[in-house]
Amino acid sequence: MRQSQLFPKTIKQAPKDAVALNHQLLVRAGFMNQLIAGSWTLLPLGWRVANKIIQVIREEMNSTGAQEVLMPLMHPKEIWNETGRWESASEVMYKLKDTRGKEFALSFTHEEIFLDLARKYLQSYTDLPIKLYHFSTKFRNEPRASSGILRGREFLMKDLYSIHESKQDFFKYYEQVSDAYLRAFKRFGFDVIVTEAAGGVFTKNMTREYQVISPVGEDTIFVCDKCRAGLNKEISKSKPGDKCPKCGQGLLKEERAIEVGNIFPFDTYYSEKMKVYFTDKDGSKKPVWFGSYGIGITRVLGTLVEIFHDDKGIIWPESVAPFKIHLVQIENTEKVKKAAEKLYNDLLKQGIEALYDDRTDKTAGEKFADVDLIGIPYRIVVSEKTLRQDCVELKRRSEKKIELTRINRLLRFLNEKIKNKDEK
Amino acid sequence: MRQSQLFPKTIKQAPKDAVALNHQLLVRAGFMNQLIAGSWTLLPLGWRVANKIIQVIREEMNSTGAQEVLMPLMHPKEIWNETGRWESASEVMYKLKDTRGKEFALSFTHEEIFLDLARKYLQSYTDLPIKLYHFSTKFRNEPRASSGILRGREFLMKDLYSIHESKQDFFKYYEQVSDAYLRAFKRFGFDVIVTEAAGGVFTKNMTREYQVISPVGEDTIFVCDKCRAGLNKEISKSKPGDKCPKCGQGLLKEERAIEVGNIFPFDTYYSEKMKVYFTDKDGSKKPVWFGSYGIGITRVLGTLVEIFHDDKGIIWPESVAPFKIHLVQIENTEKVKKAAEKLYNDLLKQGIEALYDDRTDKTAGEKFADVDLIGIPYRIVVSEKTLRQDCVELKRRSEKKIELTRINRLLRFLNEKIKNKDEK
Repeated sequence: MRQSQLFPKTIKQAPKDAVALNHQLLVRAGFMNQLIAGSWTLLPLGWRVANKIIQVIREEMNSTGAQEVLMPLMHPKEIWNETGRWESASEVMYKLKDTRGKEFALSFTHEEIFLDLARKYLQSYTDLPIKLYHFSTKFRNEPRASSGILRGREFLMKDLYSIHESKQDFFKYYEQVSDAYLRAFKRFGFDVIVTEAAGGVFTKNMTREYQVISPVGEDTIFVCDKCRAGLNKEISKSKPGDKCPKCGQGLLKEERAIEVGNIFPFDTYYSEKMKVYFTDKDGSKKPVWFGSYGIGITRVLGTLVEIFHDDKGIIWPESVAPFKIHLVQIENTEKVKKAAEKLYNDLLKQGIEALYDDRTDKTAGEKFADVDLIGIPYRIVVSEKTLRQDCVELKRRSEKKIELTRINRLLRFLNEKIKNKDEK
Repeated sequence: MRQSQLFPKTIKQAPKDAVALNHQLLVRAGFMNQLIAGSWTLLPLGWRVANKIIQVIREEMNSTGAQEVLMPLMHPKEIWNETGRWESASEVMYKLKDTRGKEFALSFTHEEIFLDLARKYLQSYTDLPIKLYHFSTKFRNEPRASSGILRGREFLMKDLYSIHESKQDFFKYYEQVSDAYLRAFKRFGFDVIVTEAAGGVFTKNMTREYQVISPVGEDTIFVCDKCRAGLNKEISKSKPGDKCPKCGQGLLKEERAIEVGNIFPFDTYYSEKMKVYFTDKDGSKKPVWFGSYGIGITRVLGTLVEIFHDDKGIIWPESVAPFKIHLVQIENTEKVKKAAEKLYNDLLKQGIEALYDDRTDKTAGEKFADVDLIGIPYRIVVSEKTLRQDCVELKRRSEKKIELTRINRLLRFLNEKIKNKDEK
C-alpha cells in the first residue's frame, strides 16, 4: 500500500485521555480510533494486524479439529433464562426490547447460543464431540473502560465451544486446546503464564487463564520463579515469597498481568440446565460435558503493543505485523522515485507485503519517525546516496544496525528472512 | 475436510416454516441454522461460502482504492441525533439504554459513524478522497423476516463510504464502484439489472440498485427487453409494455427481483448536518460530497441458492463454492479407503479444497444425495470398480455426464480446470 493513500495520517500528540501506552501508540500511529469509551474503530493498519492475529488463531483452532462458524449477536431472553444468566449475568449484559416487546441481550458470550444450536442436531454419542468456534463481537457493560483496547465494552473475541460424551474425552480436548493456545501465544511472541483462577459469571469451577506479565495488567498473579506455574491472587492460599505449591522448589513472585485467553470447564452444569442430552452406547440418556475457550483478539492487539515497543513507537513481531516491509523513498528525484517504484512492484510480485512511503511532502526525519511509530519489522530506504552504490539501506525495527544491501540481492535475502520462519 | 467430522449432518426434510427455497436448501444441506426469525448461525459450510463472497467483494473494493476497516456496532444516540435519524429512522433501529442511562442504537447502517470518524482527521483537500469499507453486522427491526436468509433482522453486509472534494470527483468514484459491483456480481454468476430507485431512510436522491431477477424477490422492477435498463416500479412513470424511456427501442417488462446491492449519492446533505468540512485550494471551507455503497453478504448467499439449484439441491458457482471437490468413497474396502485417502491428501497438497466423504455408515445412494444437496462443483467417486481401471469417476454438479478419468491424470486436469479461471 502507498502511504500517500493510507488513512489516516499519523498524529504527533497522543489524545489527552490516553493513559495506557497501547491507547497512545495505536491512536498516534493510526491503527485505531475511539468512537466512545470502550469502543474502537479498527483503521486499515489495525484491521490488518487483527486479521493476522485471527489467522494465527484460526490455524491453531483448526489443528484441534474445531470448525469455524458465525453465531448471531442479538439473543432472545428465553435462551438466557434457561441457565438463569438473564438474571445472574445481568450486570454485564446489554439488554433491549424491540417494538413488539420482545426482549434481547447482546452477546457478552455464546455458551447458551452454542448449546441451543448443538441440541438441535445432537442425538447419539456418534454425533460427539462437537467443536465450533467463531470470531465475533462481544458487548460487555464494563464499569470502566480506560486501558485503551485492553478492556472494551465492544470488542472482538475468538470463542470456541465443545461438547463431549464423557469427562475423559472432554479433558483430553481441553488439554489439546490448551496446547493450541500456547502455540498461538508463542507465535505472537508472548511469554505466557498459565494460571488457575475463579470463573466469575461463567462457572464455579476453577478455570485456566493465559496471562502475559505487564505493569498495565488488571490481574494480579503469583508466578513461581522456578517452574513458571501461576496462580491468580484471587484464589491463592499462598502469598508472595512462599514456596511454589506446585513444584515445591521455586518462590512465588507477585506480578501484574494481562489475561489474553481463558478456558472454562463447565462439567454438565449448563447442559443439564439446557437439556443437551445424548443417547450413549448403552442406550441411556446423558448430558454432554461442556467447555468454552476464549481469546480476546483486540486484547491481544493491545497487549502486543504493551510488550513490544520502545520510546519511538511499536515493534510488531513479524507474525502479526501489518506489513513486512516499510519501503521509504527519501528524495524525490526521478531516479529515486523510479527505483523505489520498481522495488515496490517487485515486492508485490513476490507476495511480500510492503507499505511504500511515496509521500513527496515529508522530510526524511518525518518519514523515519513514522517508520518507528508504526513499527513494521523491516525498513528499506532508497536514496540518491544508496543508489550510487546500487544499494538500499536495510534496518530492522528491533535493531540499531543499518546495512547497505545490493538491490539485486535484496529480494532473495528478504524471501529467505521473511518466508522461512524456522531460520529466524 | 472429512465429512465424517463435518457439523452438522444433512437433513432430509426441510423445516415446516421454510417457505423460501434458500431457507429449505441451506438448512437441509447444513449451511445455516435459525436462532430466531431473521437471525441465522452460519454453519461451517455456510461460513465458508460467506467468506468466499467476502473475498470476491474485498478484491473488487480494493481495486477501487478503498481501504478495509472495522467500525463498531453499538452507536451513541448523540451521533444519530446530528442527522435527525435517531427519530426519522426509528422504525428500523434497535435501541437500548445502558445501566448508566446512556442511549444507543445498534448499527442498521454506518453513514454517521463513518462521517464522525472522517471529520476527526479531515483538514484540507489534500486529505480527500477518503474511501473506507467494512464487512460487518447490521441489525434492522424488519416487520417481516420470512424469506430465509434474504431478509434478516441481523445480517452481514459490506458497506463502503466515500467522501470527496467535489461533485465531479464523487461521481467519478461512484461510477468506479458501480463497475466494481458489476465485476463482483459477474464473478458470482449473477445477471444483474441496474435500476433507478428511491432512497428510503437514506436519501431523497435517486439511488442505484443492483437487482437479480427471481420470483422470490421483494422488489418489482421494469426491465427493458432490449437495453436491459431497469427502473424500480416505486418510482417509474412508465408501465409494463411501454417503450423503454432510456433506449426508446425495447419494451418494459415487469419482473420480481432481489436487490443484492445499492449505491446512495448523498450530495452534501449529511456532511453539512455533521459539519464535515474541509479547506479547499482557495482557502474556503466546504462540505464534502458523500456516498455509501452496500452489498448484502448473506443476501448474496441466499440469492445464489435461489438462482443456482435444481430439484436435488444447490449448484454453487465455482467462485464461491464451499469446496471445489466432493470426493466420495463408496465402498469401504481397504483398497478403496487407501486410494481415496491418498487422493484426498494429494488434493490438499495441491491446495485444492475438498470435502471428503469418508463415512462408512452411508450407502452410495445416501452419499450421492448429499453430494447433490450440498452442491459442490465437482464430484469424484472412488470405488472398487473405478480402481480396477486405475480410474475415478468425475462428474460436474451442473451436468449429467459422468467421465472415467485416470487417477494419474486427474490432478493435472483439476489444476487446469479449477485454477485457470480464464479458460473455463
